[in-house]
Amino acid sequence: MALVVQKFGGTSVADADRIREVADHVARCRRRGDDVVLVVSAMGKETDELLRLADRVSKTHPGREMDLLITAGERKACALVAMALHDVDVPSASFTGSQAGFITDTNHRNAKILEINPHRVKEAIAEGMVPIVAGSQGVSADKDVTFLGRGGSDTTAVALASVLEADACELYTDVSGVFTTDPRVVPTARKMPTISFDELLEMTAVGCPKPAMRSVEVARTYRVPLHVRSAFTWEPGTWVVEEDPEMEQAVVSAVVPDTSEAKVTVCGVPDEPGIAAGMFRALADAGVNVDMIVQNVSEDGVTDISFTCPKDEAGSAASITEGRFAGSDCTVMTDDSIGRVSLVGAGMKSNPGVAATMFETLATADINIEMISTSAIRISCVVRADDVDRATQVLHDAFALG
Amino acid sequence: MALVVQKFGGTSVADADRIREVADHVARCRRRGDDVVLVVSAMGKETDELLRLADRVSKTHPGREMDLLITAGERKACALVAMALHDVDVPSASFTGSQAGFITDTNHRNAKILEINPHRVKEAIAEGMVPIVAGSQGVSADKDVTFLGRGGSDTTAVALASVLEADACELYTDVSGVFTTDPRVVPTARKMPTISFDELLEMTAVGCPKPAMRSVEVARTYRVPLHVRSAFTWEPGTWVVEEDPEMEQAVVSAVVPDTSEAKVTVCGVPDEPGIAAGMFRALADAGVNVDMIVQNVSEDGVTDISFTCPKDEAGSAASITEGRFAGSDCTVMTDDSIGRVSLVGAGMKSNPGVAATMFETLATADINIEMISTSAIRISCVVRADDVDRATQVLHDAFALG
Repeated sequence: MALVVQKFGGTSVADADRIREVADHVARCRRRGDDVVLVVSAMGKETDELLRLADRVSKTHPGREMDLLITAGERKACALVAMALHDVDVPSASFTGSQAGFITDTNHRNAKILEINPHRVKEAIAEGMVPIVAGSQGVSADKDVTFLGRGGSDTTAVALASVLEADACELYTDVSGVFTTDPRVVPTARKMPTISFDELLEMTAVGCPKPAMRSVEVARTYRVPLHVRSAFTWEPGTWVVEEDPEMEQAVVSAVVPDTSEAKVTVCGVPDEPGIAAGMFRALADAGVNVDMIVQNVSEDGVTDISFTCPKDEAGSAASITEGRFAGSDCTVMTDDSIGRVSLVGAGMKSNPGVAATMFETLATADINIEMISTSAIRISCVVRADDVDRATQVLHDAFALG
Repeated sequence: MALVVQKFGGTSVADADRIREVADHVARCRRRGDDVVLVVSAMGKETDELLRLADRVSKTHPGREMDLLITAGERKACALVAMALHDVDVPSASFTGSQAGFITDTNHRNAKILEINPHRVKEAIAEGMVPIVAGSQGVSADKDVTFLGRGGSDTTAVALASVLEADACELYTDVSGVFTTDPRVVPTARKMPTISFDELLEMTAVGCPKPAMRSVEVARTYRVPLHVRSAFTWEPGTWVVEEDPEMEQAVVSAVVPDTSEAKVTVCGVPDEPGIAAGMFRALADAGVNVDMIVQNVSEDGVTDISFTCPKDEAGSAASITEGRFAGSDCTVMTDDSIGRVSLVGAGMKSNPGVAATMFETLATADINIEMISTSAIRISCVVRADDVDRATQVLHDAFALG
């Protein structure tokens, strides 16, 4: 008999039929003898709809009120799942973030969990019930409702699994696991039965949309066994596990395409100590999530600096940068037609030559590389956005991932 | 400088434009120097939509989960109104029922307020802010979310006005006050500048839809000055006040039509002590809200008993009644084509003859009276549902209310 935390994302509870199907699945797990704790996201596109409503009402979006608004979505879904379980004779009780004991900081819209006091959840388990916890929310020390941010339900589930010492945390979604690349781009993409925390973390950092990166970080830190799987086919998905040093490792595990970022280039920056540092400090202070950074070789005492950031932050990134260099000869350009393709694989550490193969493969396909960044288990190349799908396909083939 | 609790109903905050208009109104009140506390209902038909969603998901509707679901509506509206106020530079803060200190019993879907500890609301007022309280909700001693029932936002507002010792409680709605009858039925219906608590209570008891009867009870008990008014024209509405014994009173203040009830008739009931009492106890235990009761003169040791109750409770009322008299010669009939028209007026107490005029007026209009019930300041007649509008018109004319 195992204790399993099961998280259901928005598409998994998008309508009444889906909610009843989730209830049936939980009933099956219970008959098998497992104790189940649920974490539920808002239904379908509800969070987007609440954000649109806020846009129509307000230009200022005060954080405290935004959080009260947005968290209504998860609460609704929780209550409905509890009702559906009640209908199939599974005793259950819903818990808001606050009731489940999620204490957070006061950083509204993107609150961090400070501690979890899940005594009500534990009591419910002890009484043979299925606790259903509203995802992505908590309560601050000021007794205000807080939202953990988009994708925060994954974090809720993993953190809860950790503090409950659950045997596994299952993240149910609309894909059946973690693939060697995006199956919509490359039809021969293959579902991986296992992947290491480090690899999945790198994949989510460079654009793999599910699960949320933050939840993978928490899972890695607290060694929570994750199972990414489908709420539509219910088939076994991908287990995320610690890297097994004995395991014969694929050099490259996955190709991750991403077109969510833009490139900002600053030309004619004086090549003096502290100039670049000051610029990136200003960007960080303004909340711009700078990702890849490339600085050209200096000529005549000036250099060019390019960086990438999420597309919707590129405008403010450009104006901050322009402000800093006002009056100088610097020019700032924004390019949102870029894309990125990344190779991720734990085996890269001991297999030199992966980068060379990647560059050759892209060159052969006549795809120009504009920026490069690497980590121990990842290589990312910025290319034209139009080339991303083709780059993904040729790299998936070149490393025989299909 | 006055302290005013303003309650905005669903139609008053139905969309983004309405919410911004409410914010503008609050800003005007603040410029006039008033302290304002808001109570907000769910937007438009949202509560109905949540109930439909629950119907699609569940047949059992567990109360605790229903309350978590339904209260999401008021929370959303609260957050949005707070944002709109923020945009017009009115400092404000939203409070859920729990945050506002509404402690209730555990009677889910229809919880009663046990006490109110509004220290956060008071602090916000002291800091010059507009507190915005989510209507119709609280928290039970078990720390579960509770819903005060449909129309409960009026109760929230009146109870809060009482405990804050507010100078007035303004109930904003989509009509401009309390009328001598339904203006949709009788175009010459006249808005009353004042009405007594007792009269309004009788009117709401016999079908006047706004404000909610329970809130009028609370207002009467705690002598909270009520102002029923429009959130669309913002013109002064109807003040609900204590009856002024010196005031020259209209004999009849209003005609109230109602077609929300059905009639159940039990024929052939043994005319023995305790039979009727047992039947109505069984109905009460099943939660049927029996309203008017008429018992015919007994003949041959048996009698007929008719009663009215809300249409959606008539089916269970009939089956409970049939169950009690199973095996006897009793027959039970249900009739949902009835309606009721009521005269309400504090002046009736000292003016005999109102009933006679009412019956004559209906007879002249060829409208048959099926049941009659009276109180000190009200006379109600059950007629055919088809006759209700015409009865309302002729009575409104007969008592010169236009």
